Amino acid sequence: MSDRVKFLLDEKDIPESWYNIVPDLPGPPPPVLHPGTGQPIGPQDLAPIFCDELIMQEVSTAPRIEIPGEVRDIYKQWRPTPLYRARRLEAALDTPAHIYYKYEGVSPAGSHKPNSAVAQAYYNKKAGVRRLVTETGAGQWGSSLAIACSWFGLDCEIYMVKVSYHQKPYRRGLMEAFGAKVYASPSDRTASGRAILAKDPNCSGSLGMAISEAVEVAAQSADTKYALGSVLNHVLLHQTVVGLECQKQMEMAGEYPEVLVGCTGGGSNFAGIAFPFLGAKLKKQKDIRVVAVEPSACPSLTKGRYAYDFGDTSHLTPLVKMHTLGSTFVPPPLHSGGLRYHGMAPLVSYCLQHGLIEATSVHQLETFQAGVQFARAEGILPAPEATHAVAATIREALRCKAEGKARTILFNLCGHGHFDLQSYMDYFAGKLKDYAYPEAEIAMALAGLPSVPVAG
Amino acid sequence: MSDRVKFLLDEKDIPESWYNIVPDLPGPPPPVLHPGTGQPIGPQDLAPIFCDELIMQEVSTAPRIEIPGEVRDIYKQWRPTPLYRARRLEAALDTPAHIYYKYEGVSPAGSHKPNSAVAQAYYNKKAGVRRLVTETGAGQWGSSLAIACSWFGLDCEIYMVKVSYHQKPYRRGLMEAFGAKVYASPSDRTASGRAILAKDPNCSGSLGMAISEAVEVAAQSADTKYALGSVLNHVLLHQTVVGLECQKQMEMAGEYPEVLVGCTGGGSNFAGIAFPFLGAKLKKQKDIRVVAVEPSACPSLTKGRYAYDFGDTSHLTPLVKMHTLGSTFVPPPLHSGGLRYHGMAPLVSYCLQHGLIEATSVHQLETFQAGVQFARAEGILPAPEATHAVAATIREALRCKAEGKARTILFNLCGHGHFDLQSYMDYFAGKLKDYAYPEAEIAMALAGLPSVPVAG
Repeated sequence: MSDRVKFLLDEKDIPESWYNIVPDLPGPPPPVLHPGTGQPIGPQDLAPIFCDELIMQEVSTAPRIEIPGEVRDIYKQWRPTPLYRARRLEAALDTPAHIYYKYEGVSPAGSHKPNSAVAQAYYNKKAGVRRLVTETGAGQWGSSLAIACSWFGLDCEIYMVKVSYHQKPYRRGLMEAFGAKVYASPSDRTASGRAILAKDPNCSGSLGMAISEAVEVAAQSADTKYALGSVLNHVLLHQTVVGLECQKQMEMAGEYPEVLVGCTGGGSNFAGIAFPFLGAKLKKQKDIRVVAVEPSACPSLTKGRYAYDFGDTSHLTPLVKMHTLGSTFVPPPLHSGGLRYHGMAPLVSYCLQHGLIEATSVHQLETFQAGVQFARAEGILPAPEATHAVAATIREALRCKAEGKARTILFNLCGHGHFDLQSYMDYFAGKLKDYAYPEAEIAMALAGLPSVPVAG
Repeated sequence: MSDRVKFLLDEKDIPESWYNIVPDLPGPPPPVLHPGTGQPIGPQDLAPIFCDELIMQEVSTAPRIEIPGEVRDIYKQWRPTPLYRARRLEAALDTPAHIYYKYEGVSPAGSHKPNSAVAQAYYNKKAGVRRLVTETGAGQWGSSLAIACSWFGLDCEIYMVKVSYHQKPYRRGLMEAFGAKVYASPSDRTASGRAILAKDPNCSGSLGMAISEAVEVAAQSADTKYALGSVLNHVLLHQTVVGLECQKQMEMAGEYPEVLVGCTGGGSNFAGIAFPFLGAKLKKQKDIRVVAVEPSACPSLTKGRYAYDFGDTSHLTPLVKMHTLGSTFVPPPLHSGGLRYHGMAPLVSYCLQHGLIEATSVHQLETFQAGVQFARAEGILPAPEATHAVAATIREALRCKAEGKARTILFNLCGHGHFDLQSYMDYFAGKLKDYAYPEAEIAMALAGLPSVPVAG
């Protein structure tokens, strides 16, 4: 074991291919279905909104997919990201645990999101697309796509959940600095947005609604495609650079994680760090306990149903099998905008359903308490989303202390909180609260789950 | 020459000592004088506000000063910082120049400031000090000291220039997240502050005023010391880790800079990158052109007088010989809060006076234009202070293009702009302007320069 604090790889150690977990799974994941026919959809159904190479990745069963040279060249601007041993946090917790964290906050957008944004912008540019349109919640994904589009000379149009649009003007400023056009969603620019506003003119928006608007815009223009920041297989695939680098870095550290923790909203940062380690577990090379942690007030993995559902509110997307709270569920106004989504990535849901991972949830106040404790020990202020992983890691580390076990714990510190200071200020001012489990709202949304037509 | 984008050093390559330029200078720098007697001050004059080890560093003529192990351990949280080859910016400018930049924005506070904050907190903690008090403008220094104090278990009290206190609430939030107490300056907590407010209750503050308040508080409590984020010799000394790392990294790149550019407010980031290279120049090992760049509206190096002056508005500090615009000069409300200071580090001033460096100035709009061009090429949004270095570098690179010369240019990208989005938003909204050279105000302030009593 090394006495280092930071484990850095060289530019040449950026992975040459992404890891695809699909062929290693115990069986094929449930197909994506057409909501009208109940038939599995084909590439042609996705062609109006995604370019061909991304559709191929979405359905690929190849074990590895090569990272194009142009994408690796841009990854070099911030990758490989550092792996840290949290020695000061360990000391503050007085735990025998060895705590490691991968820090994705060094990217231009301050999170893991550019890993997929750059890849998506590249493939779309190559396919002759002129403009990408997307949704964003807290703004991590939107700013990542804005930066990626600026690199590849693509126009970028972003539907930002209205509550975040007003709460996080600097995230919007960052997107605009890179040339993107940002609209508060629901907007009057789309039929979906107008329909929502007609029912509720003061609607503060949700990720599901913003997805509807972005998909609608993309479907209507031949030179425009849609980009999604999480949930889909190809997005999770791009994020595996995180876990692949981690595997080399843990080797440098001379340890192997017994517990791996990641926070989950749509599932992409979690899958990014976890899937390569799950691959080793599935191949019986190395065992590991993998813990997904989500907000108690938006508990898709811990309280949702594993069922076919829409990815958006206006039901423009195909049906995917996932842990869902119902596509009409609007989560309470948590400060972790990136975790306020009704569903979960189908591949992450599949892993939970098959017992490959565990899921747990934490309340908002515990996450901010953990974020402050982490910051004061390690010097890095985590994004509210990332504090969920910090909180679950602290729980694990304190359990190690109680049991006198020196376990090795690894978590993904997926982003910094420099754009989220208002939430920390609100926390210190005593303005934040825990939200009760929204049982009735979730039950109602689940009652509205689509009935899947019988195929054939 | 390598084809890399990023040059990373290992943890063990963090310098083991800071570089002191003083013994390499052509002669001893002018002494600091007591404003009452005109006599050079002694360590005992500084003891009420600084701890002994920092006073020793302030007057040291040793060529190298060892970096304590505890400080290096904390440096490891983000150091060594990356050196980048700006290949995409070069392409955007279509210049034959090779542009390199050292990126200090990866630190916990997002700039170079923690390099000195950590050292100052360490020495004060070791000396039994319980509390540090300081001033801050844009908040880079204040948040760095807040983080450093949190690491060493010191209380931290910060006087933040009032206009920035209100313009940059998130910087204040960051300081508070690390446990610091932050007050808008001028405040009613000090005699200096009350005297300023009595004259002008709506005074929006300046760095000179905030320094007065912080020094006053420190001088009144035995367990409290003052910390300064720039200007003084020991602060510049701590920043030389930047240039020392750069020297190794340029060697990795197989090049040596012909032109070095740094922005100057108090002088610390400039000295940090420049002094080790100036050392090699003074020792006739390697020649280099060194360019300091400052705001045209606060032009201490290009338009100021090289004279003895106070460091603060209320004249609580000793007299230092420096390029000054007069301690009562209040710069226009530029968005580069960190460069709004009436004076310049005495060591930087000395270097200019002796022809070791050049100085130039740029207007605000040119700096934001440069910042946006840099961001869209390199993916990193620079702090408004750092955009001055970017603008001067772009000028140099375009001159290379005009002359058909492939010069190697190095600059210090001393911080990111994640807390400065409002200024970019104002820039895009056409709300920013260039300020005319404040000739009358500077003339008046210079007319009020202190007369130095005849020593003896």
